[in-house]
Amino acid sequence: MSDHPEAPVGAFEPPYYVAVFTTVRTAEQSGYGETNARMEDLVREVPGYLGMDHAQTPGGLGITVGYFRDADALTEWRHNAEHRAAQQRGRAEWYQSYTLHVAKVERSHGFTRA
Amino acid sequence: MSDHPEAPVGAFEPPYYVAVFTTVRTAEQSGYGETNARMEDLVREVPGYLGMDHAQTPGGLGITVGYFRDADALTEWRHNAEHRAAQQRGRAEWYQSYTLHVAKVERSHGFTRA
Repeated sequence: MSDHPEAPVGAFEPPYYVAVFTTVRTAEQSGYGETNARMEDLVREVPGYLGMDHAQTPGGLGITVGYFRDADALTEWRHNAEHRAAQQRGRAEWYQSYTLHVAKVERSHGFTRA
Repeated sequence: MSDHPEAPVGAFEPPYYVAVFTTVRTAEQSGYGETNARMEDLVREVPGYLGMDHAQTPGGLGITVGYFRDADALTEWRHNAEHRAAQQRGRAEWYQSYTLHVAKVERSHGFTRA
């Protein structure tokens, strides 16, 4: 038994894609929360979007993992105009540093306690 | 300027591998900290190990992303006897649920504020 309301996104049938986005933010976070919430809504509309995991350390390292059915889904998300504007603002204001790793999942498995 | 001591692992030249391990833990965490520290030491000895990012939400969702130069590095880590024993104990005691996604990175990029 667990008192944790959260559960990780499960394993899908490979192949699928993960976008691993790791960040450290600046002290200037004006507008970040609203934009982040809007991006979370927008990405859900992308055909082939499968889900997202997010966690953040007290020290400020954030990890977001987005799961997508195929490369086309990621291309659509990458080219979304509102997403591009948010990325630009992120580089100008919100992010001290970030890394994006886009990868094709070859194998996966999940475990859930009985 | 940032007061964050942490920085995400940077982008490597593709192809390379990511192992995305997402977890929710149980209330039974006896021995977890020591084993986790030991695994962090052990994985550093794997030829082709490139680095690791880790973050955890207050609600208990943990995300660990390991970066590896190639599939052989991951195979060596997967077959490590001490690691296998730790995984077994994790399923028996420490994890409520987890998912592992192993993926080959096709593109990556990093940003650091000037």
